[in-house]
Amino acid sequence: MAPPKLTYFPIRGLGEPIRFVLSYANEKFIDDRITTEDWPKIKPTTPFGKLPILEIDGKIVNQTAAICRYYAKKAGIAGKDDWEALLIDATVGTFDDMRMAISGYHTDPNEESKAKKYDILIKETIPFYMGRLDKQVEENEGFFVNGKLSWADLWVVALLGTMSYFAKIDLVEDYPNVRALKDKVLSIPQIKAWVAKRPLTDY
Amino acid sequence: MAPPKLTYFPIRGLGEPIRFVLSYANEKFIDDRITTEDWPKIKPTTPFGKLPILEIDGKIVNQTAAICRYYAKKAGIAGKDDWEALLIDATVGTFDDMRMAISGYHTDPNEESKAKKYDILIKETIPFYMGRLDKQVEENEGFFVNGKLSWADLWVVALLGTMSYFAKIDLVEDYPNVRALKDKVLSIPQIKAWVAKRPLTDY
Repeated sequence: MAPPKLTYFPIRGLGEPIRFVLSYANEKFIDDRITTEDWPKIKPTTPFGKLPILEIDGKIVNQTAAICRYYAKKAGIAGKDDWEALLIDATVGTFDDMRMAISGYHTDPNEESKAKKYDILIKETIPFYMGRLDKQVEENEGFFVNGKLSWADLWVVALLGTMSYFAKIDLVEDYPNVRALKDKVLSIPQIKAWVAKRPLTDY
Repeated sequence: MAPPKLTYFPIRGLGEPIRFVLSYANEKFIDDRITTEDWPKIKPTTPFGKLPILEIDGKIVNQTAAICRYYAKKAGIAGKDDWEALLIDATVGTFDDMRMAISGYHTDPNEESKAKKYDILIKETIPFYMGRLDKQVEENEGFFVNGKLSWADLWVVALLGTMSYFAKIDLVEDYPNVRALKDKVLSIPQIKAWVAKRPLTDY
């Protein structure tokens, strides 16, 4: 069986959570990075005009979280029961709400509204989410859910770099519990090996 | 055991997919609708400052899709295996990408950029997504995934009304396969009963 092929832009971004989960699951995968010049040609061939996409046995699937959840189940980090799976999914969704706020700022073409958004982001949105996420990790013995590793931890740590780059601050700086979780995830042998060999990119 | 309590604003919006799945699953639930005036008081008591939230046995959970998936599993409409679950999750995520584009337009406070966004929405984004989603339903014998009902169908149909209201067009008008799916979902006895008794709201 051919290894799954992940197609994404040459950045970490939304490709990185999939790369983390595939690495954690010890799945060999093709890390296909397309150039910005090739994108207009490739776009119409994707299911919904967006990347990342993953090709598995000739079938192409989209949506980062859906793909991560699929491999997380195989790797045993998607919850021991439906309730735990719900808590993991909720954490991923919550982090995504903050991610969308940061991306909404980052991609705003209007300088004036962009500046306004940045102010709210730095003073309200990020401290609000990071403060509560930090408390969640504190209450769950160093992980997001029930004191053990889940794909919610991989999701957040994989995205922290890109989100910090977009927000122009180190998101975990003031949040010791998430910071410790980040260190812990990055010291998992499979993740450490992936990070050591991945192409160096700004975000 | 007390029935789950869904707390949301007095609209369909992001509460409606949960109400659809709970209804389909024959779960009795408390449909708690708060007023806009009460929201500032309630906001700090929620896990991450957003609604909907669901209280189950004294525990409060957030994130609409996570909650829907939890009850969809109980009702047997979350996929027969991991692969089918992936296809369902991907469909939900894809519809959400379009939903975010529509919401991004709807909530834009700047009239000029709002008008620009509307133009792109009507001419590009909505036809692109709806065209491809319609084809997906056509290829899957009248449902989004593998010719049978899943919570992806409930998700989309529950959100179509609010999204059409925000976009100021009937999203399914030009898309016969999604339109037929909508009719089919709305004729499921539990969904039909819910729709008949739910409060009448604009969106």
